[in-house]
Amino acid sequence: MAEKIGVFDSGIGGLTVMKALREAFPGLDMVYLGDLARVPYGGRSAETITRYALSDADFLMRGGVSAVIAACNTVSAIALEELRRRLAVPVYGVLECAAEQAAAATRSGTVGVIGTRATIASGAYERALLAKGGALRVLTNACPLLVPLVENGIAPDDPVAETICERYLRPFRGQGMDVLILGCTHYPVYRTVLQRLLPGVRLINSGEALAEQLRPLYGRYAAGSGHVDYYVTERSVAFDEIVRIMDDSVDAAAIHVDNSFL
Amino acid sequence: MAEKIGVFDSGIGGLTVMKALREAFPGLDMVYLGDLARVPYGGRSAETITRYALSDADFLMRGGVSAVIAACNTVSAIALEELRRRLAVPVYGVLECAAEQAAAATRSGTVGVIGTRATIASGAYERALLAKGGALRVLTNACPLLVPLVENGIAPDDPVAETICERYLRPFRGQGMDVLILGCTHYPVYRTVLQRLLPGVRLINSGEALAEQLRPLYGRYAAGSGHVDYYVTERSVAFDEIVRIMDDSVDAAAIHVDNSFL
Repeated sequence: MAEKIGVFDSGIGGLTVMKALREAFPGLDMVYLGDLARVPYGGRSAETITRYALSDADFLMRGGVSAVIAACNTVSAIALEELRRRLAVPVYGVLECAAEQAAAATRSGTVGVIGTRATIASGAYERALLAKGGALRVLTNACPLLVPLVENGIAPDDPVAETICERYLRPFRGQGMDVLILGCTHYPVYRTVLQRLLPGVRLINSGEALAEQLRPLYGRYAAGSGHVDYYVTERSVAFDEIVRIMDDSVDAAAIHVDNSFL
Repeated sequence: MAEKIGVFDSGIGGLTVMKALREAFPGLDMVYLGDLARVPYGGRSAETITRYALSDADFLMRGGVSAVIAACNTVSAIALEELRRRLAVPVYGVLECAAEQAAAATRSGTVGVIGTRATIASGAYERALLAKGGALRVLTNACPLLVPLVENGIAPDDPVAETICERYLRPFRGQGMDVLILGCTHYPVYRTVLQRLLPGVRLINSGEALAEQLRPLYGRYAAGSGHVDYYVTERSVAFDEIVRIMDDSVDAAAIHVDNSFL
């Protein structure tokens, strides 16, 4: 029987991770869950995030998956240990792999991280980066407005996007930072504006870093066409539009709704 | 025994309504519930909003309240009928009273409404305004970014607030509108910038409209000092800061957490 892996996110930011996985392992069967009925997780308490993440993972487990991926930096920062304790299959997040890629890429030794309030407050990126060894200097800043700006159609070339990004990047200026981790799955949508504001700085996309990390495991699915199912816990008012912003190759009409476990 | 009324909101936008009620009826005992563990409701489906609103109201009912107030325009627009069917006490929203005040105030006959995606998509304000009789023309626009901007500390005098507000107000320009309903409990925080952009237009604050509507019922509490309890379903990461933005007279440290009913 073909194996199937389960991927979940607080909403549909995780579609950027799915895209990276689909490109790397097109032959792999996958099922995705986006918890739109309780999105966003990024400003919530650690207790609530852990509770929600466990129920999301349980939903995937009931579908018979052989591994669970938390395609959400907030969940990866807060709840990964607890998920690993509670699930009988391997659990991967998007944080360790991004930290590893960043530690390998920096020449100056100064790495920046941007993410949600919960991700940054957790200190998980600092811990992961410092665990990679070497004498890294880690700078972080929470960017809570980027998710709503992305989801409400403020395009990367909109002056509002540039103004807000520039404010959030200010603490990193003049610090010798040469690598910035995009520590939230929505941020790749703003890659162009962030790169324009930080010329010469390497931006780390956590979805791509995860695909790299999983290559030894799933490299045998590098060809073919796997079956992918998408589930969400509700169709929000602007659902189709938000799906299109995150990944316009996904057909919003084909996404199933299941909120029986909430 | 003194009566006690229950007030709930998806989060802490409803604190602007509580403020209006406390000012109008300082002798009235009240209990407030902010569902921060599932906030925001404004982009969610009608089914999810109704489900959440019923569970919030049940929490208040178990506390022995004699009336329930939905201090949230989204809930008032989507779930008020269902709440009234299911609860054994009177249920008030913030929509009918705002519509009534707007219909009475307009001279030009053209009334504007701004609110969340769910509120505007519901058409509830149009229905309420047209039910007031007369030949009103109703213009609406969803402003989904205003809640995150307010909650993330973008002050009313910030150029970003003005830019986004101006975009959202564009469809109302040149239409002869003389009254605009602030159809979301967060929007009074941006009253100054909205008024600057719309000189001569009367802005309707739904919390103040509700206090006006309830005066015949609770006017006997216009003096004294009632007991007010505040509950939330979690303390989000930036909790204290968000409480301060919404109503700096509320002591964030004295707010209880109860998520036993989620």
